[in-house]
Amino acid sequence: MERITLAHGDGGQLAHQLIADIFVSMFHNDRHAKFDAATFTLDLHELAMTTDSFVVKPLFFPGGNIGKLAVAGTINDLAVVGAIPKVMTCSFIIEEGFPIGDLKTIVQSMAEEAKKANVAIVAGDTKVVERGSADGLYINTTGIGVISHPLEPKMCEGDSVIVSGSVGDHGVAILVARGELGLVSTVESDCATLYPLIAKALQASQRIRLMRDPTRGGLATALVEICEDFGVTIELEEERIPVKQEVEGACELLGFDPLYLANEGKVVMIVPKEDEQAVLDALRSQPEGKDAAVIGTVRATNKGQLLLRTPLGTTRRLYRLTGLMLPRIC
Amino acid sequence: MERITLAHGDGGQLAHQLIADIFVSMFHNDRHAKFDAATFTLDLHELAMTTDSFVVKPLFFPGGNIGKLAVAGTINDLAVVGAIPKVMTCSFIIEEGFPIGDLKTIVQSMAEEAKKANVAIVAGDTKVVERGSADGLYINTTGIGVISHPLEPKMCEGDSVIVSGSVGDHGVAILVARGELGLVSTVESDCATLYPLIAKALQASQRIRLMRDPTRGGLATALVEICEDFGVTIELEEERIPVKQEVEGACELLGFDPLYLANEGKVVMIVPKEDEQAVLDALRSQPEGKDAAVIGTVRATNKGQLLLRTPLGTTRRLYRLTGLMLPRIC
Repeated sequence: MERITLAHGDGGQLAHQLIADIFVSMFHNDRHAKFDAATFTLDLHELAMTTDSFVVKPLFFPGGNIGKLAVAGTINDLAVVGAIPKVMTCSFIIEEGFPIGDLKTIVQSMAEEAKKANVAIVAGDTKVVERGSADGLYINTTGIGVISHPLEPKMCEGDSVIVSGSVGDHGVAILVARGELGLVSTVESDCATLYPLIAKALQASQRIRLMRDPTRGGLATALVEICEDFGVTIELEEERIPVKQEVEGACELLGFDPLYLANEGKVVMIVPKEDEQAVLDALRSQPEGKDAAVIGTVRATNKGQLLLRTPLGTTRRLYRLTGLMLPRIC
Repeated sequence: MERITLAHGDGGQLAHQLIADIFVSMFHNDRHAKFDAATFTLDLHELAMTTDSFVVKPLFFPGGNIGKLAVAGTINDLAVVGAIPKVMTCSFIIEEGFPIGDLKTIVQSMAEEAKKANVAIVAGDTKVVERGSADGLYINTTGIGVISHPLEPKMCEGDSVIVSGSVGDHGVAILVARGELGLVSTVESDCATLYPLIAKALQASQRIRLMRDPTRGGLATALVEICEDFGVTIELEEERIPVKQEVEGACELLGFDPLYLANEGKVVMIVPKEDEQAVLDALRSQPEGKDAAVIGTVRATNKGQLLLRTPLGTTRRLYRLTGLMLPRIC
């Protein structure tokens, strides 16, 4: 009998297949997997909607907690499809015995994070399961936004790929916080609400082609998906990709690749070359975007490949995350 | 240290307090708890939005499964606030090792159920947790509808209370399906999408004051909440409340009260006396509403009490469900 494995949940190849084989095919909705939020028209209104369940372990980590992560994650998914996040629901599955004080701390972070993007939390739900039936707390957040900047994902030769800051911070922060590796590190999760940052970028350029927040599967998987979905090739310059020294160090020790580690406060954008500087300036004007960098270029070939040029001048192809990297990262 | 108990999740008194103390107060949203779905205006559009996580045990039961329950539950929450359900998201938390065949069966039921109300499932999410960290499968569904019949919950002396059919079926079906009680029964869950039924009722009367789907906490808790929230007294006639014989029998054996057992395919409505017959006729014209009955009357006193007149002519006050009745019912 076929069974679910942890790798079905890591945002990589198996997860991709599960979504295509079951959800997209049975729900007859092929827009399901392509964007971070669905967009649809409701009585002449163009809206965006996204849902995420959060099962991060541990619930509290340097730089945030499951509640902050849930609210920021949902706001970011709306922001990257060009929507102004408006309202959100949140639903809790709580294990019997969970400390109410911890719940309050988490809910307080959610309220604070929602406020940063002026998002109203309009409905909720609480379920409690017996001791041992869940792992402390799971949170679902689902959000709606109004499309303000309909993106036209039509990429051209020479378009620039910009990332808003260093990659892999969230992945390493979670790994270290689990304490299983005996590792000590000062890396904090980058967990942050990106709506105000993205709004600045959209003001600076009316021609941003596409945005993604590279969460599970990391920067590489997010870009592989763009290459495949839109039939373009992207060439990344390895040495231009910002990676913090502590993240680099932890990855070397543990054998991880920062390009595949989750981020929870970064956005990657494809912009026309002419607008590159304006977008960079807009991103760098905000604290969340101060390390923004151009990391690659769109090539005209329609091979749908993600290529990485190393400092040695060699080029290798990057694939979607395969197999299990890190469960319970968000 | 204060800790979460199973009773915090049963829809009764403790759940009510948890929601008021933590979620409503921290999210600064006092509409949170009063209706089955939140309503809000998005650029001049009146929308409804609702979220629910489903943790029902077992996942398959006579009359349905967790997927059918999740989709129907969300559609019903939208329908009872006078909305036409439009789009929905669904998010899965799956335990490692879960049979993929079972997942397909469940997703198929979700697609079928959504189709009954013409609801599009527009976005989804899948998380996988390690073996032992969840109980097979949890599903969150979040839906949006467009308000077609804004309800004016202004109740008057003499208004009729109508229920669309027998109460307690879902609760008993789940209890029996768990097999822990050594009970055998033919009762099936009433799990059903109520949107088409409710649309008929709304066509029959423009003056329906209020609707609820009496899920967790049962008919009694749903009506106690109405009495408290709107400061009216409702007098129920015990012998008019439809209860199936098998449900009655199981309740007597087990010491449960059918008025507090969950329903997943029933709606309770408050309507002006003059519209009573038209609404009854509309409900009874559909299979899901064939046993619809008038079960009580709104009284003018503003004491906010739910009263039950027994066949012996005595009257007793009913309260919100307190303490633990049945965990994992939805």
